[in-house]
Amino acid sequence: MPVTRRSFLTSLGAIGGAGALYGAMGTLGLAPAASAATPAFRRPSPSDFALSGRSAASVVVLGGGIAGMTTAYELGRAGYDVTILEARQRPGGRNWTVRSGTTETDLAGETQRSGLGPGQYLNAGPARLPQHHVTLDYCRELGVAIEPFVNQNADAYVHYTTDATGEAPGATAASGRTVRQRTAKADTYGYVSELLSKATDRGALDDLLSAPDKEALLDFLTGFGDLGSAVDGDPLAYTGSGRRGYAVEPGAGLVEGTTDAPFSRSDVLRAGLGRSIPFELGWDQAMMMFQPVGGMDRIAYAFEQAVGVQKFRYGATVTGITTLPAGVEVAYTDAGGAARVARADYAVCTLPPHIAARIPSNLGAEVTASLAHAVPVSTGKIGLEYDRRWWELEDRTYGGITNTDLDLSTIWYPSSGFHGERGVVVGYYNFGGNADSYADVRHRVRLERALAGGTAVHGPKYAQGVTSSFSVAWRDVAHSEGGWVSWPDQTGPEYRRLLEPTGNVHFAGDHLSHAIAWQHGAIVSARAAVTALHERVMSA
Amino acid sequence: MPVTRRSFLTSLGAIGGAGALYGAMGTLGLAPAASAATPAFRRPSPSDFALSGRSAASVVVLGGGIAGMTTAYELGRAGYDVTILEARQRPGGRNWTVRSGTTETDLAGETQRSGLGPGQYLNAGPARLPQHHVTLDYCRELGVAIEPFVNQNADAYVHYTTDATGEAPGATAASGRTVRQRTAKADTYGYVSELLSKATDRGALDDLLSAPDKEALLDFLTGFGDLGSAVDGDPLAYTGSGRRGYAVEPGAGLVEGTTDAPFSRSDVLRAGLGRSIPFELGWDQAMMMFQPVGGMDRIAYAFEQAVGVQKFRYGATVTGITTLPAGVEVAYTDAGGAARVARADYAVCTLPPHIAARIPSNLGAEVTASLAHAVPVSTGKIGLEYDRRWWELEDRTYGGITNTDLDLSTIWYPSSGFHGERGVVVGYYNFGGNADSYADVRHRVRLERALAGGTAVHGPKYAQGVTSSFSVAWRDVAHSEGGWVSWPDQTGPEYRRLLEPTGNVHFAGDHLSHAIAWQHGAIVSARAAVTALHERVMSA
Repeated sequence: MPVTRRSFLTSLGAIGGAGALYGAMGTLGLAPAASAATPAFRRPSPSDFALSGRSAASVVVLGGGIAGMTTAYELGRAGYDVTILEARQRPGGRNWTVRSGTTETDLAGETQRSGLGPGQYLNAGPARLPQHHVTLDYCRELGVAIEPFVNQNADAYVHYTTDATGEAPGATAASGRTVRQRTAKADTYGYVSELLSKATDRGALDDLLSAPDKEALLDFLTGFGDLGSAVDGDPLAYTGSGRRGYAVEPGAGLVEGTTDAPFSRSDVLRAGLGRSIPFELGWDQAMMMFQPVGGMDRIAYAFEQAVGVQKFRYGATVTGITTLPAGVEVAYTDAGGAARVARADYAVCTLPPHIAARIPSNLGAEVTASLAHAVPVSTGKIGLEYDRRWWELEDRTYGGITNTDLDLSTIWYPSSGFHGERGVVVGYYNFGGNADSYADVRHRVRLERALAGGTAVHGPKYAQGVTSSFSVAWRDVAHSEGGWVSWPDQTGPEYRRLLEPTGNVHFAGDHLSHAIAWQHGAIVSARAAVTALHERVMSA
Repeated sequence: MPVTRRSFLTSLGAIGGAGALYGAMGTLGLAPAASAATPAFRRPSPSDFALSGRSAASVVVLGGGIAGMTTAYELGRAGYDVTILEARQRPGGRNWTVRSGTTETDLAGETQRSGLGPGQYLNAGPARLPQHHVTLDYCRELGVAIEPFVNQNADAYVHYTTDATGEAPGATAASGRTVRQRTAKADTYGYVSELLSKATDRGALDDLLSAPDKEALLDFLTGFGDLGSAVDGDPLAYTGSGRRGYAVEPGAGLVEGTTDAPFSRSDVLRAGLGRSIPFELGWDQAMMMFQPVGGMDRIAYAFEQAVGVQKFRYGATVTGITTLPAGVEVAYTDAGGAARVARADYAVCTLPPHIAARIPSNLGAEVTASLAHAVPVSTGKIGLEYDRRWWELEDRTYGGITNTDLDLSTIWYPSSGFHGERGVVVGYYNFGGNADSYADVRHRVRLERALAGGTAVHGPKYAQGVTSSFSVAWRDVAHSEGGWVSWPDQTGPEYRRLLEPTGNVHFAGDHLSHAIAWQHGAIVSARAAVTALHERVMSA
């Protein structure tokens, strides 16, 4: 029985309940989220054409990042004739892993060549995958091995020089100290529990809490805050806990372990020692998190292989986009600098919107203005390769992220290669003004500043044994010009305009999703474009 | 210059500050904790003898578990003549990994033979390594590769059928529900933050909080609880959060994500949805945690190789311990059942104390009573091998532990082999009465009960596709007769008695540490025995 338009559309979205679609997805190789539903996606299939007597179309995809490759992969496997125009000489776009020999010249004209040792890498762009992101389904389908990414570690640190507002200089015993995250958390939860226990015990919340509620709450808080551990003390008081760590660890014989006194309540609160805790509670940041074994670009190269490398035109910089009554023409300069044109039935533009906005086209002023409405976000990283894994050897910190209010923002310890010889620390991963301040200087200065900041956190060892380094300021990376974009209004007409095709040109990318800056966003946006395009072809 | 007794003792412990010892340890290959100090250990060295003109002694070690092998390793590398008497046919003791073909007959007479597939395993004993445990130093030194162990995962679950006390049947909307840990945490922190914010805002804590304290606290709580997200609502109210998960995940285009309403405040408190949170804050349970790649017994076999397999007498069951004016005699039956005697200058007994207490000796009634004073703890696990990793495919749970108040206590999802074909779920890991109730029945019944309990948590899929299973009730495991021991009084005379040698017999094991049930405890206790024994030899 041929697939009618109506039955096809029904199968696309009107089916009652996501469950049926999920079941089908499972048999198609991409197993779905059960309770937290990734928006349903029905894959185009060669049988869609075989059963309907229609022919697949040709599609030129602008940009060989994750959105572009997802588009090409899903269309290509259904029989579409896909071509990817990619300005770089590699797949992945912002999915970029710097390795031994990686060479890059930034828009300021500075060239870096990575001196990283064998097996060492820096994920310059995306570096972590939540369990619920569909990116993991493509890892499974494309054979990309994954391993845990250490996004949160009790034995990483916090280091805050300002007060809890982040504005005034800190003036507490905790200010400017490098404190284990477990310590910051134990003291924060301890005092929160003490305060709420006392308020509850005083009856200050009797209008909100029944007697059984109060009993249950007090019981929870005693455990949550480790209250009342002092002998003969106030049972509702926080007086420290082994959770915060030991001066002398519990050991053999009579060594019960010795804890230090906690920071004072006022110091903990005014220092904002708990200010990084909300991050680890986030929907897309809570552990467990994952990464591809060997570098994030394993995903990019797996996509390249699955799409077929012959479908890529590398070094192709798009110079013009023309939608025609039938088809599209995309002008580009090839790797040799020659002007060329790619013709196809449809185009899917996955270029960063602020870059696409500059490309001459006949898509109209409204589309151009919509693309230009997106605001690029500055972000950067530096990779510091050390000749010894001092964070394991001396600090016993096995992966994780130290949070600071220094301009370096965060320091990341590697999530793989434990107990190995070398390792790459991310010396800063920051945003906005902090990122700009590093982007504004040359690599040598970035390195000096990163080492100075890290030394403030970790002491002199931080500046010793650095065997190589590589920094990326996404603002100044050609073909990206930013880490991602923000929208002044993600419900506004500009954003909505790009969700619809213009003529035969569709748009996709993480910027057209509610998972901006995540590969998940690129993929689900690409799937939406694939669905819309396939629907057009099937209903033509 | 020869090492005098005084200079040697000085080097052992009287050196000012642990730092010098740590530095020395670093050069000796075992890099130490920096801030949370593992009790310092000066390794005996061949040069101790060479420099002093003394000879190393012979030592018979009773028990080839982690304590025994640490003892033999540290003494052996210094030149001691060590012999290990081990009743089993393998090293490791409770460090035991069940794999394909593992066969075990328990004390009740039931024999299980593991049908696990290639590469699949169950760590029947210890399964996790905190970053600060010295066990990791031996992994590094002995070349045992490690990888993260997922001890806590926001996308694992809680499932409580009782109220917060754990005693009465639960009667809330959350009771008997399988709830994501991220949901339980978001709702718990949300309401805790709401309540403390309101109490603070009402001035109920003004005697404890200065104005700047209050401001900082309210600021923290807004972020910690994700308060005030409802438009035009109470800015101090918790009304749900994306942190708890989505009914429809944020996706492409206009799909902002849809959250469900949170459980009510009273339901969250009275259901005790947050009751498992303190566990993940623990000194020795907070993430990051680690495991050896391929099974915990990689440590045992690495020790065996480092000690030298020729030093082991497997199948040797100790039947008598005699301390002599000079030396010791340890009687045992060998693998063939023949009575034998091992003679040495010293013995280190690492057998479980309740088992050692039954062995005839001339150590005296006080020692025997001290050994018998330890109380074995019942614990057990079942491994369930599935033909598909449904927890990843359907639940998107990549490792971690689900906490319940069912008699199975916890369900563990594997921390390795992500996206593989098969996987081993720990269907229960429980203690005390729950463990006894499983120990009391045969494996077939344990399996049925585990599947029934797991089905209550996960639904019918839990009972489907189980390709093999293996259960261990440590109470009934020969040569262990318990998972570990507890001491009625760990400062009492019985415990203290065993910290000192009796004649030429020393004692060691995790039971003689403040890290009972951890390999760390076995190691630091062994190191203490090694230090004491070496000191005797060096001062003889």
